[in-house]
Amino acid sequence: MDTRKRRVCFPLTSRAYYGRTQLLIQKLHNHPGIDLQLMLGGSILLDKYSRHIADDIERSGFAISTSYFNVIEGGNHVAMAKTACLTALEFTNGFHSIAPDLVVVCGDRFEQLAIAMSAAYLNKTIAHIEGGDVTGSIDESVRHAITKLAHIHFVTNADAHRRVLAMGEDPNYVFNTGSLDLELAAMVRTALTTEQINSYGVGHEVDITKPFLTVIQHPVTTETDNRAHLESTLQAIVDLDMPTIWFWPNPDAGTGEMAERIRHLREHDPVKTAKMRFITNVPVEEFIALLRVTSCLVGNSSAGIKECSYLGTPVVDVGARQQGRLRGEHVVNVPYDTGAIADAIKAQLRHGRFEPSALYYKADASQAIVDVLAGVELYTQKRFCDPPVPVPLG
Amino acid sequence: MDTRKRRVCFPLTSRAYYGRTQLLIQKLHNHPGIDLQLMLGGSILLDKYSRHIADDIERSGFAISTSYFNVIEGGNHVAMAKTACLTALEFTNGFHSIAPDLVVVCGDRFEQLAIAMSAAYLNKTIAHIEGGDVTGSIDESVRHAITKLAHIHFVTNADAHRRVLAMGEDPNYVFNTGSLDLELAAMVRTALTTEQINSYGVGHEVDITKPFLTVIQHPVTTETDNRAHLESTLQAIVDLDMPTIWFWPNPDAGTGEMAERIRHLREHDPVKTAKMRFITNVPVEEFIALLRVTSCLVGNSSAGIKECSYLGTPVVDVGARQQGRLRGEHVVNVPYDTGAIADAIKAQLRHGRFEPSALYYKADASQAIVDVLAGVELYTQKRFCDPPVPVPLG
Amino acid sequence: MDTRKRRVCFPLTSRAYYGRTQLLIQKLHNHPGIDLQLMLGGSILLDKYSRHIADDIERSGFAISTSYFNVIEGGNHVAMAKTACLTALEFTNGFHSIAPDLVVVCGDRFEQLAIAMSAAYLNKTIAHIEGGDVTGSIDESVRHAITKLAHIHFVTNADAHRRVLAMGEDPNYVFNTGSLDLELAAMVRTALTTEQINSYGVGHEVDITKPFLTVIQHPVTTETDNRAHLESTLQAIVDLDMPTIWFWPNPDAGTGEMAERIRHLREHDPVKTAKMRFITNVPVEEFIALLRVTSCLVGNSSAGIKECSYLGTPVVDVGARQQGRLRGEHVVNVPYDTGAIADAIKAQLRHGRFEPSALYYKADASQAIVDVLAGVELYTQKRFCDPPVPVPLG
Amino acid sequence: MDTRKRRVCFPLTSRAYYGRTQLLIQKLHNHPGIDLQLMLGGSILLDKYSRHIADDIERSGFAISTSYFNVIEGGNHVAMAKTACLTALEFTNGFHSIAPDLVVVCGDRFEQLAIAMSAAYLNKTIAHIEGGDVTGSIDESVRHAITKLAHIHFVTNADAHRRVLAMGEDPNYVFNTGSLDLELAAMVRTALTTEQINSYGVGHEVDITKPFLTVIQHPVTTETDNRAHLESTLQAIVDLDMPTIWFWPNPDAGTGEMAERIRHLREHDPVKTAKMRFITNVPVEEFIALLRVTSCLVGNSSAGIKECSYLGTPVVDVGARQQGRLRGEHVVNVPYDTGAIADAIKAQLRHGRFEPSALYYKADASQAIVDVLAGVELYTQKRFCDPPVPVPLG
Repeated sequence: MDTRKRRVCFPLTSRAYYGRTQLLIQKLHNHPGIDLQLMLGGSILLDKYSRHIADDIERSGFAISTSYFNVIEGGNHVAMAKTACLTALEFTNGFHSIAPDLVVVCGDRFEQLAIAMSAAYLNKTIAHIEGGDVTGSIDESVRHAITKLAHIHFVTNADAHRRVLAMGEDPNYVFNTGSLDLELAAMVRTALTTEQINSYGVGHEVDITKPFLTVIQHPVTTETDNRAHLESTLQAIVDLDMPTIWFWPNPDAGTGEMAERIRHLREHDPVKTAKMRFITNVPVEEFIALLRVTSCLVGNSSAGIKECSYLGTPVVDVGARQQGRLRGEHVVNVPYDTGAIADAIKAQLRHGRFEPSALYYKADASQAIVDVLAGVELYTQKRFCDPPVPVPLG
Repeated sequence: MDTRKRRVCFPLTSRAYYGRTQLLIQKLHNHPGIDLQLMLGGSILLDKYSRHIADDIERSGFAISTSYFNVIEGGNHVAMAKTACLTALEFTNGFHSIAPDLVVVCGDRFEQLAIAMSAAYLNKTIAHIEGGDVTGSIDESVRHAITKLAHIHFVTNADAHRRVLAMGEDPNYVFNTGSLDLELAAMVRTALTTEQINSYGVGHEVDITKPFLTVIQHPVTTETDNRAHLESTLQAIVDLDMPTIWFWPNPDAGTGEMAERIRHLREHDPVKTAKMRFITNVPVEEFIALLRVTSCLVGNSSAGIKECSYLGTPVVDVGARQQGRLRGEHVVNVPYDTGAIADAIKAQLRHGRFEPSALYYKADASQAIVDVLAGVELYTQKRFCDPPVPVPLG
Repeated sequence: MDTRKRRVCFPLTSRAYYGRTQLLIQKLHNHPGIDLQLMLGGSILLDKYSRHIADDIERSGFAISTSYFNVIEGGNHVAMAKTACLTALEFTNGFHSIAPDLVVVCGDRFEQLAIAMSAAYLNKTIAHIEGGDVTGSIDESVRHAITKLAHIHFVTNADAHRRVLAMGEDPNYVFNTGSLDLELAAMVRTALTTEQINSYGVGHEVDITKPFLTVIQHPVTTETDNRAHLESTLQAIVDLDMPTIWFWPNPDAGTGEMAERIRHLREHDPVKTAKMRFITNVPVEEFIALLRVTSCLVGNSSAGIKECSYLGTPVVDVGARQQGRLRGEHVVNVPYDTGAIADAIKAQLRHGRFEPSALYYKADASQAIVDVLAGVELYTQKRFCDPPVPVPLG
Repeated sequence: MDTRKRRVCFPLTSRAYYGRTQLLIQKLHNHPGIDLQLMLGGSILLDKYSRHIADDIERSGFAISTSYFNVIEGGNHVAMAKTACLTALEFTNGFHSIAPDLVVVCGDRFEQLAIAMSAAYLNKTIAHIEGGDVTGSIDESVRHAITKLAHIHFVTNADAHRRVLAMGEDPNYVFNTGSLDLELAAMVRTALTTEQINSYGVGHEVDITKPFLTVIQHPVTTETDNRAHLESTLQAIVDLDMPTIWFWPNPDAGTGEMAERIRHLREHDPVKTAKMRFITNVPVEEFIALLRVTSCLVGNSSAGIKECSYLGTPVVDVGARQQGRLRGEHVVNVPYDTGAIADAIKAQLRHGRFEPSALYYKADASQAIVDVLAGVELYTQKRFCDPPVPVPLG
């Protein structure tokens, strides 16, 4: 019998992944049968998106096997594609060096597919967290392609479960554990103060004891008019004239033009931004606490679909990025239209908070994942499993 | 209305793909509404695998937009993974430069997934030829991951069709056109002479007017004992003491050790190889003609499953590489066991040729593909389509 | 006799190179015996440093063979080194594709050495502009290493000439043509208005009809305390309380921390920056016009040593970046010390403008270079030429 | 005072470098003040050139920090250039990871310049072994460019010493220690048997107790007719009809066509190769022992110039690869001409062995290098040192 510890490699390539997986990472780190190795690359190493995250990780005592700087500048599709390729090339070296038994891939970011490809070619067993969902953007393709490279699947909801099986994955290796984000959201008891949130970012102070909006609008990489789409939201917020906390978009193809538009507005039209605060990011606990008190979340963040379902926060979901995703009553989807966005926000403000939903929530998601990763029999040769006759999807 | 020609880019990365797709390439080249651009990379540029192929292509008058040398030496999984990454990085530049509307990806080789990933990240519409099959090796994962990145699917048989739909692809964009290989096989009227075939490769002359075996055994990249697996076949062939034409394995992780074993045997044990001829490759027409006259094809080539189904050539399929693939009566599958391989070959020799099968054959496969590529409405944003309640798979 | 046009490839990787070489590029473009191909990569493609430069180039009618996005984010040495490697890898493909007879490499930026290496390995004849100077930073190593890879040398002054010969270069291929920057500076007749200059950048308006300072301080990549070094200058400028136009540092290892320091000061200490305007860049003609009217140039830009020698502009050169460079009377060098910097600026303000110097100036530098590039016999095999007994260097 | 061990990184990229530097590596490994890290890449990891070398290194107890597969197939200039770039990119990660104080670069292979560039950009102190020589091929450019990036120089002869100073290097950091190859050659007491040497390679047995030739002819990467140049030598050897041990060429641009020519001759013209044995490589001790007994070394290996000077072995140096190198009486240089080569070999056979020369030899070269590496004060900012008025070079 092999009593060697199971070597689990966790590639971390964005601040967001670290935020949502930290309970899991902590439990993997503590597990007596697991030797956890973090591998860092992508935007998590870059100051402007992730100040101090890498340092935080190091301070937590987690083993970082290596860090690869591999984000190619440009903010366009070419830079995004080449970043993915370079990431995979470098992570191949990393995997070769530390020889993990298991590689844990997360979500649907473009570089995670590249990493999964590399791990598959090295005959590593791949575990994938958050497969099976349906959304817009390139994420939709990335997520399912990862599913077809992965051997162990942790999905967050029943719809995703059925889809992963439909795609031919082995039912013995697909686990609906609920969402790590929501496990974390449920645990966070942080009470956020106005002083605290205003210590981040630039712009004007927002009093969070009074009604305020939160905006998170990322580029949709399969669309070509991200700047115009941002404009619709920007105009709606300006028209509403409410205190607003605005998060800069994630680094993706299209981010540059969006960030520039915001920067230009700040610099040249101080009146319009007189009630806005612009924040790059906040620690995940404070982010949850913020969602808990904001009057309405506007934009296209998955937090609107997931965290807010559990928190009961009203959400105006703009455009196609989250299209098709299982969603609760708290979400209203609107097109890229200033009037429609403004009207939807007003309606949500009138409604106020919603009842919490358990669409994406199960208790102890992280423990369930750790148990599988530590104990399941590993395999590498995949084989298409004929899907069962399905119950029609919701 | 846009009357611009549709720009179709065809990445060619291996000799085999060029062989089987040449009818299609010719028709794309001739189509008045299509501007065809070939992009070369991978092993097709390397003398030892593809002597003269690149020159042939150039002579054919096809436009080669660029050629990228990107095969990393090593013959192991690390080299294979990094080759894929470097290929994708360079093809990203190529796609950026020629701005195709459509990228046509073929089959299930590791670098084709990397290329598909790059094309997807550049928001290109991707067409995939030969998706939906089930096999062993890493090909199984690669093939289905490409399906989840591709927008237009050309499958070769009914089983594959059902699987691609099960995986959530849009039924309006999945076409069962039959196999390009078989369309070509059906057209080839070349009569191969003993002199002709012996002008290729090294070793002893094989008289193809008398019974002889043909062996093609590639590495299975998800297995670690390719050398031992080769040994079983090698020993069976030595025991049978029949004239044999042996094709060198494809360049993949594991090829090095296999090729070295064969080289060593030739150099050090001339008696055992006294009836063998070793060939790197022959033009596809002569390859078909060879399959038509060989007494039995041994190994794990897909030609055994596909071309031989149409040609009625007896096949002994060794090991797991083709496992799960739809197959005709002409194929016997055996494990990596010298006795089992030898017995199966003897049984197939006793049986002789089989009736042709149309499992993978439809007339005019290439024309059907061209018609779709030229006329179908292109899209880029994918969306999971709930699969219909399936007829159970064969 | 070969009457084919000579194919000259000009890799452009930074805004600065394009600025100073545009007379040369125009003349190469117009020459009947030369087929000029520009190849773009590095920071010249990135909005934040080079907005519109690539577009300008395209509008000028110059042929751009290709553009490579290859700047790796990080702003540290690792990112800088990997950017150089990726640049060279991609330019290798570009050179392979366009097959130039001559590659023209400029100056001493880190990516230019990588490009020269690639060109040398492809057996291209390499021409180098601005070799032989002595400075600090990694530029010192880069510049001389390029010299040892290049076949044709265009130096800007007598000292550089002697050094290039001392290093073993063939005297028949070393040409002192004077500086392209100064040829341009001498031609520029643009009169800059206060309105014009204040249309660039952010911050407060600077009235350029009254005394004002200009600051350009780049990181020194071989030093580890760029932020502290910036601080000395920043403090000196704050103390002097004069209108100041401050240019953001070039993208190099160390830029990030410097830029952040400036950004932080602007955001959090508006009083201290109340007389400052921050500019990313201006067209080269307006830059020259600005140097012509500024009371003093402060920092470590080579423009202080070169352009200002011809323009007679007082310069306070801070730190080691330009150490060892041939310099005129108009330059005072000071250490990274707030007091010393402030005192030197005051002294230069008292002195006022200097007499123009011809240390780096010869008429028609660009025509001299074009004549050589068009007519000189090309060779590729280098051979160390024993240097003549030297006249001692200045 | 810093009592930390000095971290010395030794990148090994070819079998040849490991052979000649093993005394040095052993002494660095044993030194109490040095923490030695080997970093492997390039052809040393590839079976066909370096079987077992990597294993040998590991068995020797040396710490291998990492191994990078980065040789790009093609055997042409593009593949060579891209191999260098990929090597540098990956070694950048390696250097970043192990943070050496000193990087030791050897000789003049193309990938060593790329590695030196990467180390320089990371502000590492670079030591260079075997600078200052003059030869042909791209090696000439590579060697001197490395000199201009390196901080500490170990040259093997007085001419090289003077050249390195002429190029502006600091006289306090240039050390003439003699050649490591010759130190090793002087120590080797291995007596080679006929049986031993014939256990390597393929072809016919060569009786080394009787007269025999040894041929080593590498491609010259700055020439385009390596195959024709090989042909001249091949024909001369065929004409002489003497037992001959032929070493396959090193992996470089041009190797493919040369190796193929030899392979073709073996396969198709067994009569002409009836007295030839073809060997990929032998351990360095046996190589020295072989040079000691061969009647004449033919080709363009540096071993002809260096090792053979000390051993007194007659050498026929063919073509331009070693042109300009300081050489003893034992070497005759001839052009690529069958008659001239054959005549020179006959003349050398008539002459027989030469007196040993100390042109390249000093006792204890490796110890001298270790002493400097362990004790010299390290610096990173280079500065051109005006060369002294030189004694004219030999």
